[in-house]
Amino acid sequence: MQNRRRRTTRLIDLTRRLTEAPYALFSLGAFAEDYGAAKSSISEDLAMIKAVLEAEGSGTVRTFAGAQGGVRFEPWMGPEAAEAFVLRLLQEIEQPERLLPGGFLYITDLLGRPDVLRPFGRLIATLYWDEAIDWIMTVETKGIPLAYAAAFWLGRPVAIARRDSQITEGSVVTINYVSGSGLRIQTMSLSRRTMPPGARVLLIDDFLRGGGTVRGLAELCREFQADVVDTVVLIESPASAPRLVDDYRSIIRLTALDDHGREIRAEAGGFRSALDAAYRRMRRYQSPERTHDEGGERR
Amino acid sequence: MQNRRRRTTRLIDLTRRLTEAPYALFSLGAFAEDYGAAKSSISEDLAMIKAVLEAEGSGTVRTFAGAQGGVRFEPWMGPEAAEAFVLRLLQEIEQPERLLPGGFLYITDLLGRPDVLRPFGRLIATLYWDEAIDWIMTVETKGIPLAYAAAFWLGRPVAIARRDSQITEGSVVTINYVSGSGLRIQTMSLSRRTMPPGARVLLIDDFLRGGGTVRGLAELCREFQADVVDTVVLIESPASAPRLVDDYRSIIRLTALDDHGREIRAEAGGFRSALDAAYRRMRRYQSPERTHDEGGERR
Repeated sequence: MQNRRRRTTRLIDLTRRLTEAPYALFSLGAFAEDYGAAKSSISEDLAMIKAVLEAEGSGTVRTFAGAQGGVRFEPWMGPEAAEAFVLRLLQEIEQPERLLPGGFLYITDLLGRPDVLRPFGRLIATLYWDEAIDWIMTVETKGIPLAYAAAFWLGRPVAIARRDSQITEGSVVTINYVSGSGLRIQTMSLSRRTMPPGARVLLIDDFLRGGGTVRGLAELCREFQADVVDTVVLIESPASAPRLVDDYRSIIRLTALDDHGREIRAEAGGFRSALDAAYRRMRRYQSPERTHDEGGERR
Repeated sequence: MQNRRRRTTRLIDLTRRLTEAPYALFSLGAFAEDYGAAKSSISEDLAMIKAVLEAEGSGTVRTFAGAQGGVRFEPWMGPEAAEAFVLRLLQEIEQPERLLPGGFLYITDLLGRPDVLRPFGRLIATLYWDEAIDWIMTVETKGIPLAYAAAFWLGRPVAIARRDSQITEGSVVTINYVSGSGLRIQTMSLSRRTMPPGARVLLIDDFLRGGGTVRGLAELCREFQADVVDTVVLIESPASAPRLVDDYRSIIRLTALDDHGREIRAEAGGFRSALDAAYRRMRRYQSPERTHDEGGERR
């Protein structure tokens, strides 16, 4: 009885510690010490937690062997939850009072809300759960909440390109780029200290119109010899003119944005094929033929 | 045995769901339905989780009765964890390579790192765990990551004041304010749609020098008939000149910032008395004389 209560306490506390810090690596030895338990007991606990998470489609617990090893939580979002989130987002975005003069869309409120940012971040983490990503990058200002939401669930650092260079950034790399409409030349800077060469970067932004900003971010990455793994935007505008980029995934695609008729129409964006692919990889990962403890290198 | 396994599964899954979404309100009825269990069993599970969280000092589970009721996780950070975080932050900040020409401090890397933002957010959530806060507010750009970190752990929305007004914000309220040095007049805008009157606001920023920015934020709050509950800054500079504000809490206080000597010295800031007060309230909340289910209004 005493033993069972200790195990229950451990399971609750371990679940909390792991799921509160996605992708943070914990040492089995430290867990064993914290709970005054044998490593083998902790391993059993972790196997139980892993089984429950995977059965619910809410993530996995992955163990890495060796000196650099440990255990970490990798969050997933199941198909129903993803679908429900996108549907809810579509309903919110189609509210006609979001229309601003000039055919712009008010979404600042969405970018401030935990009930939008949490599932957004979790969805991004699901898309890239087994991808080698080192950094998440965006440009100020409205992309920042989205980048941090993704960064929270992926446990990766964020780099923010600034529109103007700031003295508090130290020496910076600055690029000029042309907006998608071709009408404006804009500037973007990133502190030299930000990323080491060879970093693998996920680009995130709130809105894609012509694609100039995203192309600018990719160009800035090249200056840092960084590889762009993928590009995600929350919303893409109706495709009225050719885009400067085509290799991106949107969560929401606007199909009509009519200032006069006060109508907004939207549909789920191009993220779905990537999500399906991620689910396929999860099923392979969970298949019984495969050992779960990889013992390999941690990415 | 079957029953015990079902309970274990439920405890793991409930812990994950609660701790992944701090301050999100869950319905007991929905839990009971999801797990095909009696409400009384779910209540027992929640009592167990609550006991473990409180014993570890990592939070509580609070139940609210009535139609608007439900159950939520409120995260805490224990004294040792808070101490360890501030110590680690001090060591990071005192690295001499952070000094920039002009006596500025490079902290952009810290503001991008999950291992800094997570404990920062959790510390803020601990300071204000039982405070009535409706919004977290900051001004672009470097305060944003800190505001979102706090918002994640407090489950509250974020309002970002912009340095220049943007067409995508709709109609805005703009104020002019004088920087702490008195040398510059600056501008800050917030979309009219942001906050309803009477909102209770926690102000967060990265760095406090003269206090002009924080005073500007407070003035902007007045324009929205919002109450400033408190002000938190990550770092305050050495007090060389009188400050425009005195009612704030810093996490770190710089004591020396010497460009020539290449020396940075820092100490824990003024948040500590607020943290001690929060711990006292937690002990009262946990005292056995008190019923834990308040049945009262949820804030």
